[in-house]
Amino acid sequence: MELASHLSPLTSRGDTICALATAPGGALGIIRISGAQALEILSRIFTKDLTTAQPNTIHYGHIVERVAVAQQQTAIIDEVLVSVFRAPHSYTGEDSAEVSCHGSRYILNKVLEQLIQHGCRMAEPGEFTKRAFLNGKMDLSQAEAVADLITSSNKATHDIAMSQLRGHFSSLLAQLREQLLKLTSLLELELDFSDHEDLEFADRSELSSIANKIDKHISQLTHSFEMGNALKQGIPVAIVGKTNVGKSTLLNRLLKDDRAIVSDVHGTTRDTIEDTIDIKGITFRFIDTAGIRQTQDTVEKIGIERTFQAIQKARIVLWLIDQQPSNEEINEVLQHTENKKLIVIKNKVDKTDNNSYNLLNLPFISISAKFGTGIEELEQSIYDAADIPALADSDFIVTNARHYDALVRAHQSIQRVIDGLQMQLSGDLLSEDLRQALDTLAEITGGQITPNEVLGNIFTHFCVGK
Amino acid sequence: MELASHLSPLTSRGDTICALATAPGGALGIIRISGAQALEILSRIFTKDLTTAQPNTIHYGHIVERVAVAQQQTAIIDEVLVSVFRAPHSYTGEDSAEVSCHGSRYILNKVLEQLIQHGCRMAEPGEFTKRAFLNGKMDLSQAEAVADLITSSNKATHDIAMSQLRGHFSSLLAQLREQLLKLTSLLELELDFSDHEDLEFADRSELSSIANKIDKHISQLTHSFEMGNALKQGIPVAIVGKTNVGKSTLLNRLLKDDRAIVSDVHGTTRDTIEDTIDIKGITFRFIDTAGIRQTQDTVEKIGIERTFQAIQKARIVLWLIDQQPSNEEINEVLQHTENKKLIVIKNKVDKTDNNSYNLLNLPFISISAKFGTGIEELEQSIYDAADIPALADSDFIVTNARHYDALVRAHQSIQRVIDGLQMQLSGDLLSEDLRQALDTLAEITGGQITPNEVLGNIFTHFCVGK
Repeated sequence: MELASHLSPLTSRGDTICALATAPGGALGIIRISGAQALEILSRIFTKDLTTAQPNTIHYGHIVERVAVAQQQTAIIDEVLVSVFRAPHSYTGEDSAEVSCHGSRYILNKVLEQLIQHGCRMAEPGEFTKRAFLNGKMDLSQAEAVADLITSSNKATHDIAMSQLRGHFSSLLAQLREQLLKLTSLLELELDFSDHEDLEFADRSELSSIANKIDKHISQLTHSFEMGNALKQGIPVAIVGKTNVGKSTLLNRLLKDDRAIVSDVHGTTRDTIEDTIDIKGITFRFIDTAGIRQTQDTVEKIGIERTFQAIQKARIVLWLIDQQPSNEEINEVLQHTENKKLIVIKNKVDKTDNNSYNLLNLPFISISAKFGTGIEELEQSIYDAADIPALADSDFIVTNARHYDALVRAHQSIQRVIDGLQMQLSGDLLSEDLRQALDTLAEITGGQITPNEVLGNIFTHFCVGK
Repeated sequence: MELASHLSPLTSRGDTICALATAPGGALGIIRISGAQALEILSRIFTKDLTTAQPNTIHYGHIVERVAVAQQQTAIIDEVLVSVFRAPHSYTGEDSAEVSCHGSRYILNKVLEQLIQHGCRMAEPGEFTKRAFLNGKMDLSQAEAVADLITSSNKATHDIAMSQLRGHFSSLLAQLREQLLKLTSLLELELDFSDHEDLEFADRSELSSIANKIDKHISQLTHSFEMGNALKQGIPVAIVGKTNVGKSTLLNRLLKDDRAIVSDVHGTTRDTIEDTIDIKGITFRFIDTAGIRQTQDTVEKIGIERTFQAIQKARIVLWLIDQQPSNEEINEVLQHTENKKLIVIKNKVDKTDNNSYNLLNLPFISISAKFGTGIEELEQSIYDAADIPALADSDFIVTNARHYDALVRAHQSIQRVIDGLQMQLSGDLLSEDLRQALDTLAEITGGQITPNEVLGNIFTHFCVGK
């Protein structure tokens, strides 16, 4: 419990917390309780004594409320199942319990009310996971992965969050820190032998090599954030083209196909997120669709300001045509999509023979947005254009802005080390930057003492009950 | 398993069902599995073998999906806790399990998908409870109480549903059936001794007494349905009065007070149900409030058609006044509220000295809707006007239309028995009506063979996962 020393009185773990851990409105509702007194408090309102219950066991009984004369009479609030967990083998690392109730709001309110009356307090958002972190059950990046996992809505973000929760990022960071420590010890060795000029030269070359290797790895991680962020928010796609070319029909076709897929499993249809589609587990987000959805499309020509703004925000641009574009138009589009993935789409294949278009050797896809022809091929092209790196076990995509910020600062420290080595700076100066890099990386996992503001900021973004 | 004989192939319990048992969107999501193969199927996608797990134990592990080459590689879908239950000591009476997942829609979808791929099928609404009924874990009225319990939003409906779930209604019906059986056996005794004319006379008197006692009890139950229905739907209240008397302000005052109370416990605020309030656990529903909510209130005078329609639908009428009503008006209101509870409310006590009104000895309450004066007293009056009977353990309020229908038919059968006894009808004819009464009461608990249509109708109103 070495971490306990930096707890403020506000985060004291002396008290026992409770919260609804499921969304209200289902057949079942789970109420979670954690803290030293969890089983004692619960036993006061449960028909069985749980204080001697074995860990990881389930108990049937009634949650009761003392009513009327001298509190001798009890009213049954619900028939429940209680799961008992014992410190340290629980999610939080504390004694805890989960009460599985009928999912009535009245019941869930009543049970929480009773728990509070008998000594619990309502948990703050993320407080169960915060306790898990404070009790050493997981590091800070793993705790953050819990929130990401709960909000993940597709395979890509799920896989990254799961990888992070399982500690892959943490062990990657541990490797980096190990290399940094090696660098530090080599630097100390150099200091010890600083009288021997010949030794110094050999060491510096090895030091530079290690520093560059570390920097390369950190740079890879920082660069992955652009992708990670895009995966988390949805990869931005712009649909451009002239009026009446079928932009709105194409958008609806892509959205509709997706809706049908995601509502496959009964009872778990997601909330409608406007204008995003999933292709093979990756979310794509159509930007600036307001104009496309208007029946009176005022975008008369591809060369209009607004269209280019949409292109600027996009990673992938779908250029929809239904007749031969002029060379001027083609060049204009190419010019504005230089750093983008451009997909040229010939719409209305059912109507016109558009194989005769001259597109200056640009590849294209032929579709009918109206009849669905070629949509599968288009989706494959959109997926390919996203250019998702295949995730090896050793790779990691950074999705968290806090982690990105720390990695950028670590990169800057390492850069100073590399520059310093070239400039033949003394070891004392270099080791200060190395220490900074080490500390900065430690921030990510919370291995360093984490200020309460930072903890507060992380856990307020959690839902209640986790 | 004597009930198994009347199962159609559609309700065969050979298969194993799964469903999400919690509302999606929380920190946790619970997936429920039930059937002979529950633990076997789950073990195929879980990192531990659960087929030999002890009942009522909890197991930590991963739900995995076989991916890629020759299905040798697995991807982790989630870190979960599995609760194991064994037949017959489970909710359904079958082997079953609950998987506690992170509440991500992606994860919940994935786990259900995996279960289905490995041999489960999605449960129909109410199918877990249906199986509990078919396996003799509860009778039909108890099964119906489960659905009522989940949807109960106040103390009154909760208490009735809980009482029904705990079998109070069932044992009450059992008592009635016992008395009916006693009547039947006495009638058979009479038939056996039908040669002795003196015996017959004595028996008939006792028979009439028993029949009347049964009928009185059944009538009490049928009469309780009006109250039961009102409790379930909310007791209808009409607010009437002239324009600008403060109807809208009063309505908002009553609604606002209530909103503040129900959102006490964080994270469990109920969906806004328009224009209902809870007073001491009873829901009151304001009817025809559209007119009241319009700023331009067109109801100029109390004697307008629409107001009387509202009064007709109400049990309780709040008549709001802010000046001396004419005797004609008072009489008109009294005339239209003859079978209603009328509460006369003098509004705007802050403005006028309205103690000088002459209300022909009608009791009244003085309030200020604007400043909240007298609202507590008014709420108490509304609660008193509802005239909720104190529920003794032996009493029961019928809330279910199917039960009401059966009770009405049983009452008709008993009435025919009573009439027949008076008309000296032969025992053969009487016993036919007695059998009908017995059968009709048995419909409620499902003690008789229940047709599949009836079962279907009952359980489709359940939510999925219960």
